[in-house]
Amino acid sequence: MTDAVAADPILETDFIKEMTRQMRALDTYGTYAGYSVEQLLDPFVLTREKKAEIPIVGDPDELTLARVKCFYNAIAVLIEKECGQLAVPLIHLTHEGFGRALITVGYLVAIDKTLRDVHRFGFASLSKMKDEADKLLSVAIERIGKHPDVAGM
Amino acid sequence: MTDAVAADPILETDFIKEMTRQMRALDTYGTYAGYSVEQLLDPFVLTREKKAEIPIVGDPDELTLARVKCFYNAIAVLIEKECGQLAVPLIHLTHEGFGRALITVGYLVAIDKTLRDVHRFGFASLSKMKDEADKLLSVAIERIGKHPDVAGM
Repeated sequence: MTDAVAADPILETDFIKEMTRQMRALDTYGTYAGYSVEQLLDPFVLTREKKAEIPIVGDPDELTLARVKCFYNAIAVLIEKECGQLAVPLIHLTHEGFGRALITVGYLVAIDKTLRDVHRFGFASLSKMKDEADKLLSVAIERIGKHPDVAGM
Repeated sequence: MTDAVAADPILETDFIKEMTRQMRALDTYGTYAGYSVEQLLDPFVLTREKKAEIPIVGDPDELTLARVKCFYNAIAVLIEKECGQLAVPLIHLTHEGFGRALITVGYLVAIDKTLRDVHRFGFASLSKMKDEADKLLSVAIERIGKHPDVAGM
């Protein structure tokens, strides 16, 4: 790890910190104990070249599913921090990798995202992943702000 | 089938009719083609004796899961009929038979039920099943009535 990378400000954001926490929580056997944040989150980065190597049609494996859950768990935690209410993530997929990701707050569906081709789940870069998370987060927070009673606030 | 049973008014209710439709929809190979409504819905009736035969801990099989989906699908259809909006059922279970059943209408969680011991899913009688469905339906309709904007009406 060079100093230039260590200084990447994205690694200091709440989202990336939460993603790291989620990934470490999944690591029952301490396999990733010595990993840096970049190494830990590397499987989420799917460059164009890496994506081209994955077949177009395929079933997602356990590790990919764990990463999808990790991503939406992290967003749920950020929603919770922002609004102080319990946010419950729910990933519903067929074995072929199609389905929905929901995050509910009270009776409100704060996030409802259609998932497709989950076996190719990944982002062009960590910053693109953060952009996507920020987008989802702002939609959720706006919706909760609009309907605070439904969200149980 | 005796005339007394055929005359059971419960069989004429929207809910039971929808349950029959859902069960027939699942019947890809026409195995149940000659079945009466009672025969078709018999697996939903779990008398005390039948329940006692099922082990307390167990994993639900495919047929039981199909019945759970069938039940919540039928309720979703009734919600849709009542409010004119798309109601989407979503069953989320671990392989051990614990989880949640959601029905969402727009951004509103109309139904959110915790599921437990799904391998023992069933009701003491058809009328008890209808009672449970009516209860869920009235909760959902009331909630939609309270938050019509969130439900997209």
